[in-house]
Amino acid sequence: MVPETPTPAGETAALSAEDLRDAWHVLSAAERLEGFRLLPRHEAEDYFFSLSPIDQVDIILGLPASERRSWVRLLAPDDAADAIQAAGDERDMLLGLLDEPTRREVLALLAYKEDVAGGLMSPRYARVRAAATVDEAISYLKKQARERVETLYYAYVIDADQRLVGVVSFRDLFAASADKIVAQIMSTDLVTVSEDMDQEAVSHIFAQHDLLAIPVLDANGRMKGIVTVDDIVDVVEEEATEDIQKLGGTQALEDTYLDTTFLTMVKKRAGWLCILFVSEMLTTTAMHAYEDALARAVVLAVFLPLLISSGGNSGSQACTLVIRAMALGEVRLKDWWRVIRREIGIGLTLGLILGLIGFLRVAAWPNREELYSVHYLLVGATVGTSLVGIVMWGTISGSMLPFILRRVGFDPASASAPFVATLVDVSGVVLYFTLASLFLTGNLL
Amino acid sequence: MVPETPTPAGETAALSAEDLRDAWHVLSAAERLEGFRLLPRHEAEDYFFSLSPIDQVDIILGLPASERRSWVRLLAPDDAADAIQAAGDERDMLLGLLDEPTRREVLALLAYKEDVAGGLMSPRYARVRAAATVDEAISYLKKQARERVETLYYAYVIDADQRLVGVVSFRDLFAASADKIVAQIMSTDLVTVSEDMDQEAVSHIFAQHDLLAIPVLDANGRMKGIVTVDDIVDVVEEEATEDIQKLGGTQALEDTYLDTTFLTMVKKRAGWLCILFVSEMLTTTAMHAYEDALARAVVLAVFLPLLISSGGNSGSQACTLVIRAMALGEVRLKDWWRVIRREIGIGLTLGLILGLIGFLRVAAWPNREELYSVHYLLVGATVGTSLVGIVMWGTISGSMLPFILRRVGFDPASASAPFVATLVDVSGVVLYFTLASLFLTGNLL
Repeated sequence: MVPETPTPAGETAALSAEDLRDAWHVLSAAERLEGFRLLPRHEAEDYFFSLSPIDQVDIILGLPASERRSWVRLLAPDDAADAIQAAGDERDMLLGLLDEPTRREVLALLAYKEDVAGGLMSPRYARVRAAATVDEAISYLKKQARERVETLYYAYVIDADQRLVGVVSFRDLFAASADKIVAQIMSTDLVTVSEDMDQEAVSHIFAQHDLLAIPVLDANGRMKGIVTVDDIVDVVEEEATEDIQKLGGTQALEDTYLDTTFLTMVKKRAGWLCILFVSEMLTTTAMHAYEDALARAVVLAVFLPLLISSGGNSGSQACTLVIRAMALGEVRLKDWWRVIRREIGIGLTLGLILGLIGFLRVAAWPNREELYSVHYLLVGATVGTSLVGIVMWGTISGSMLPFILRRVGFDPASASAPFVATLVDVSGVVLYFTLASLFLTGNLL
Repeated sequence: MVPETPTPAGETAALSAEDLRDAWHVLSAAERLEGFRLLPRHEAEDYFFSLSPIDQVDIILGLPASERRSWVRLLAPDDAADAIQAAGDERDMLLGLLDEPTRREVLALLAYKEDVAGGLMSPRYARVRAAATVDEAISYLKKQARERVETLYYAYVIDADQRLVGVVSFRDLFAASADKIVAQIMSTDLVTVSEDMDQEAVSHIFAQHDLLAIPVLDANGRMKGIVTVDDIVDVVEEEATEDIQKLGGTQALEDTYLDTTFLTMVKKRAGWLCILFVSEMLTTTAMHAYEDALARAVVLAVFLPLLISSGGNSGSQACTLVIRAMALGEVRLKDWWRVIRREIGIGLTLGLILGLIGFLRVAAWPNREELYSVHYLLVGATVGTSLVGIVMWGTISGSMLPFILRRVGFDPASASAPFVATLVDVSGVVLYFTLASLFLTGNLL
């Protein structure tokens, strides 16, 4: 399967970064590299920065050994660490291409897990002394601007023990009169994160405080680096993608949809699909128990898909809402009681609405006597009351399962919509046939 | 239902912003206001900034008329516009509290839809002239630092017609020698967005380019304002939440889960639930057509929940993956052919795996002859082949539905997992009974 290739090398160099970006997903690794090398250096650099760490490593490893160093050294330490993390066996070779101080920084970053503040931070930030005058601070920052500090928007005030004592924004420095000292204008009301804080929690702090960068401290209050908001945009997208994929009943993909290989895709989907399938087999076992009832009133079978799908749908609604609210920090573990209280009421209301429609579907259907016998009102009542029960049960289990999973230490997003639906299906079958025997024994049964 | 109230006014003023944030969702409007007024002014301001526009307006309207102005004027024009947007009838009263130049800015912003670049942008940005020397530019920016420009990180170079000709970062200005002019060091390779670009597209541009701010231009290339990355974090979270809620089969909530009223919650959920329910009624109609077959072989009914749920689960996986990939811009409309080609293969593989398990569930079950008659191998074949077909069909329709919806101009996320499951259920019933009559006519049927 060879897709439209970009203009081949030599023919014309009018390939733009935009063209390459458009074609990226349909190109093979070799074609990507070829396209990349056709870009003018300046565009190639911009393009390189916009790639994911995995793609950056693929490019670097694809280049001749003599060209690799300039690309590795182009990356800021935090991005270099991400790329080297993705490089697998070639890790040490890439580390060897860095200059000595950067290598030390990158090695320190590689010690962190990828998804915590330490793994996101850059160790290069602008710093000033508390005793410096505003003018001294500005000239010192001018010097730092020529080095590769991550952001100049905030300058951090560090004491002799590397402890963070304050922060001063550029705007504050600019607006202050030149003879004031930093300690007089710095803010000591600091928003900080610990180096092992989960990246999702870090992103909530950014969303709450509208900051451009947040300092990362170790357990002793020593400043280790800063996390900048541009990295957080990626984190928020990544975390949402992971949750969405889990909610859909798939293991989260590590790569983009189109870049995930066939085999990986099957693996990520078959696991959950088989678990759900085997659990759903319980419905078969349950239904065997009701075969006699079914033989006497085959009509009961025709409502089965309708009933169990309603439980699945209401459960899917409830679990999705609760899981998202948990991910955003709006609902916490201790809120379970408030959630269940609401969801019982909502489930009952929704159940009554669907139950009424279901009852009418039977009892007001044109040829109701022909289809459902003279006892059509009782059949309608069976369907209607089953719906009330199944929808309530779907709503309650859908909303509570994320709490239970989080309580026992699992990711609440594993309570995917299909998972809740499967759980509800089995109980739905049992409830339906129990109510049927209650309403219909002596007439249809 | 009165929750634990915070320390009442007067008793002690030791309420912190953190306490208030923790209790926010369980407090009534009056209690929120009371808690807010107990905070020291400085903390109250920080807290106020962290609130959503709706909550900000509630606070402002709750305060005595004499105190309102200082809070409205605290907000930057883009935030003021969002809050005033949320104020409904009180809009004009709040607009009247602004100073004249800000009111003009806010009115201009209110003309944009909330979810486009124009609705996100701030009209206050730092500007410099191309002909200015680096030193002149820095002193001019110092002056602007004392006004309320949104960010000083980039200074935009505007010509006499208000057209954007370049951008210079603070770092560039600082690193350059003082006698150069801005035109020599500015970058003219600009990333810009149009004022009516959708906020989701804007967020992709931020994710791609790792910028702190992006200028917004009108159709004539005139600079209207800047969108800053801290607002984009909120956009990305908001868009993901909307997609997740739709995928779960709910209309997107405007408020947080706990702040949404009972009635709104029922409305947002009942709509889709009823649509799905009425569509699912087609399964009942379809099954009536197979009642004779069912009467002869009741055992066919016991596999129904298992079969149709497998179609729903595989469809839910496929649609979730495709919808997310679309939202991230990884998959575009024209990629439909590549997606369907993959999904046919994946659906076939997954179908064969489940089909095999399903066949064994029947043909290798301990009391198979008793449950499924001497024709258990044929029953097993019916279940197995139905699974292959249903899983493939679920996978294909789940992956294609988002393309169809987008093609006809709907939001692909409306192809929720429950919606796909419902579509697949009806065809699953038909397929199953068709295969059953093929395999079992003459023996069981």
